[in-house]
Amino acid sequence: MQDKFNELKSILAEVHDLNRASSVLGWDQNTYMPRGGAEARGNQLGTLGKISHQMFTAEKVGKLLDELKDAFPSESDEAAMIRVTRRDYDKATLVPSEFVVEQAQVTTAAHEGWMEARQKSDFSIFEPHLAKVLDLTKRYIEFFPKADHPYDTLFDNFEPGMKTAEVQAIFAELRKKQVRLLQAIAEKKQVDDSFLHKKYPEAKQKVFGEKVITAFGFNPNVNRQDKAPHPFCTSFGINDVRITTRYNEKFLNTAIFGSMHETGHALYDGGFHPSMERTPLANGASLGVHESQSRMWENLVGRSFAFWEHFYPELQKTFPTQLGNVKLGAFYKGINKVEPSLIRVEADEATYNMHIMLRLEIEIAMVEGSVALKDLPALWNSKMKEYLGVTPPNDALGVLQDIHWSFGGIGYFSTYSLGNLISAQLWEKINSEITDLSDQIRNGKFDALLGWLRANVHVHGCKYEPQELVQKVTGSKIDPAPYLRYLETKFSDIYGL
Amino acid sequence: MQDKFNELKSILAEVHDLNRASSVLGWDQNTYMPRGGAEARGNQLGTLGKISHQMFTAEKVGKLLDELKDAFPSESDEAAMIRVTRRDYDKATLVPSEFVVEQAQVTTAAHEGWMEARQKSDFSIFEPHLAKVLDLTKRYIEFFPKADHPYDTLFDNFEPGMKTAEVQAIFAELRKKQVRLLQAIAEKKQVDDSFLHKKYPEAKQKVFGEKVITAFGFNPNVNRQDKAPHPFCTSFGINDVRITTRYNEKFLNTAIFGSMHETGHALYDGGFHPSMERTPLANGASLGVHESQSRMWENLVGRSFAFWEHFYPELQKTFPTQLGNVKLGAFYKGINKVEPSLIRVEADEATYNMHIMLRLEIEIAMVEGSVALKDLPALWNSKMKEYLGVTPPNDALGVLQDIHWSFGGIGYFSTYSLGNLISAQLWEKINSEITDLSDQIRNGKFDALLGWLRANVHVHGCKYEPQELVQKVTGSKIDPAPYLRYLETKFSDIYGL
Repeated sequence: MQDKFNELKSILAEVHDLNRASSVLGWDQNTYMPRGGAEARGNQLGTLGKISHQMFTAEKVGKLLDELKDAFPSESDEAAMIRVTRRDYDKATLVPSEFVVEQAQVTTAAHEGWMEARQKSDFSIFEPHLAKVLDLTKRYIEFFPKADHPYDTLFDNFEPGMKTAEVQAIFAELRKKQVRLLQAIAEKKQVDDSFLHKKYPEAKQKVFGEKVITAFGFNPNVNRQDKAPHPFCTSFGINDVRITTRYNEKFLNTAIFGSMHETGHALYDGGFHPSMERTPLANGASLGVHESQSRMWENLVGRSFAFWEHFYPELQKTFPTQLGNVKLGAFYKGINKVEPSLIRVEADEATYNMHIMLRLEIEIAMVEGSVALKDLPALWNSKMKEYLGVTPPNDALGVLQDIHWSFGGIGYFSTYSLGNLISAQLWEKINSEITDLSDQIRNGKFDALLGWLRANVHVHGCKYEPQELVQKVTGSKIDPAPYLRYLETKFSDIYGL
Repeated sequence: MQDKFNELKSILAEVHDLNRASSVLGWDQNTYMPRGGAEARGNQLGTLGKISHQMFTAEKVGKLLDELKDAFPSESDEAAMIRVTRRDYDKATLVPSEFVVEQAQVTTAAHEGWMEARQKSDFSIFEPHLAKVLDLTKRYIEFFPKADHPYDTLFDNFEPGMKTAEVQAIFAELRKKQVRLLQAIAEKKQVDDSFLHKKYPEAKQKVFGEKVITAFGFNPNVNRQDKAPHPFCTSFGINDVRITTRYNEKFLNTAIFGSMHETGHALYDGGFHPSMERTPLANGASLGVHESQSRMWENLVGRSFAFWEHFYPELQKTFPTQLGNVKLGAFYKGINKVEPSLIRVEADEATYNMHIMLRLEIEIAMVEGSVALKDLPALWNSKMKEYLGVTPPNDALGVLQDIHWSFGGIGYFSTYSLGNLISAQLWEKINSEITDLSDQIRNGKFDALLGWLRANVHVHGCKYEPQELVQKVTGSKIDPAPYLRYLETKFSDIYGL
């Protein structure tokens, strides 16, 4: 059996190499590639993707998986690798390749349609495309064994093993309390954040950002940071993980918190057990767990008072004319300003989840067929009013703002919020074990925190499903209570609730 | 037949994609990759190389080549593609894969041995490794049909279709006259180039270098320049060709002439006919022809008086303290200083070929078995004395200076000199057709030159073998006379011969 396992492993290692090579090509495409390179790059990525898919979906792989089904103790890495591969193999082989081709055609057109619709702020342009995407989505679901809810099949692609009913239950509890919190904040005097919108030269932002992420554990021997139009994290191996950063000279938050966020992802990707290199276990447990790491470094660490007690003097020294007269307390309030807004990606910690819940509810309704697509703009706007108290003046600022549906990405919005919840849940656990964590942060020390995350979360790669991992690490499944406690404590202080 | 041709072409397109993807990974490895990424990168490159080799050497490809042998008129691009593919296919399939594995092991050890030997300046450490490399080389030759001379089989890998006897005849003529020229120069007063060794800050070198190569035709829409420890040119497609540059703050020539040189390669790689994209024709005709392009832009253009009439004022403005008091004439002489030296890579235009001829003669003797390896240091030193009038004080500065033999790269040194010869031969032809070329260069105009090269050389890719191409473009095969005329005219002027 060990021979068969090694045979499987060596096929998977080569598939892994091809996928990482694609990641290198994608990174270059988003950072340094001259414009003229686009067509050739498309061909190269297409060929790599095709070969990787052929190698992975070969009958040989299925046969080895069958033979190895019960070959190893269920707790072993070997068994986990076989489980994860089986899951991916089924997903890759149950969907016929003609369907994948059709999907690519439909979503390419839908993406064009979405861009035009958003530009003209006219949902009716996108509606027929969305209808086709939704039809494809329903047909996709049909390829898989019947689940409790059709949305389960989609959601499982991002949160393996989790059910729609679970996330609905979690969000139901979250929504009620978070809406109440937002209402309480809305009644208070707004904080000032005008100083964040002064002119902040990019080069100085870069130097300061590097100091922060280096303190977090970002390490030039195994990491790089480059500039790109969209921030992202990408991994070419456990010892080569890179992030990109977008700079906005008119808003200090963009690059600084963006870098912290991507560093959170990068530390996770660099923390898998070395034996997982070139195996399917060298991945995060789920998008939600991955997001818990980025949100933790960005928000629980980076937007904390203790953090800025250490770093604010340095920031003031970097930007003396912009921040010389802004006191630490005022700065802390400014970067944590709560303001219900129309655009998800610009939302603060207290309002962000509301954007997500709205989208999840609409997506489920679409998949169930309980809403007509033509009614989406009105549904969107009414939920925005209900959850956030604001009404989009047009479709571009409403239902058309996100790219996801245009590429068929139905099923993963909720992972963003699950990341928030998991981050706070881990945070409570960490603080119970590293009792002086605040003091450490106040002194610019993050190694105990990173060590804890490495030992309890990162090292496992995707050996465990997300709920299993959270249960194992914190003692309970994903639970919104810690995040609500965190928000309430933090914003009671800032807004004097 | 068109169907079969299309089938072949689509296999070759995917092989091409994989090879270009490897180039992207190699470029990243040499420019931006964090050190920690080396192991994963090695695996990725290994996997890409293996799959590309498997796809290319598949029986299917051989069968299609047989069937398509006479399917297209011999002058057509289709026929050329089939010929080039046949040649590469035979080279790839005649050598057993176990041999390739053995070769990799031997050369890996030989590379280590060479590094240690050079560091300790002791040829005897490298000698047993070289013996193994040479043994492999002889066995490699045996895999191929018997040629006129065993060295032909090696040489053909770099200059397709060319014979050892041809290059020997060319070099015989060259050697006599070039030695005489060097002796004449040695009797004259040496020119001063001390100003080239002042401190030249990298950032300013970069800005000036970009102006020069942009004027040559280097275009940010399809080209990039990055910094790397070793300068090179690499192509990811006709519209994505990149160069790297090494800066030396204590020697002005390194980066400036290095950038011009690599730009020459890049313009060639970017000039293949668009229909050749993703085909085996999207390559230079040979290493020698490729080198003719880099040498032309570096030397015939970049080291000409006319060029500096245009660019020297700009250079002086860039480096006023370093060059403010150096007159154009003195600068021109300085950058063209002739000085027999021990190290090939630092050699000037008038001495460079001597280094190459020495190596070619020694390589042929090794392959023929007419020299004992233990005698190489003495043979090397005596030839250095004879051709250049200098004697290496030790092996590190003599027979151990080049990396090539350690990786089995026997057969391609002469392509460097062939590049010089071809460049001058093309240059005479160009000047007969663009009669005011000097004036254009004097005015910083290079588009007619580039246009000529594109139309007469670049556009053909590797459709023609090197001798065929040179014949077609200049009316005669590779001929040392134009280069000798060029050297004599130029250095007679500079040294007052």
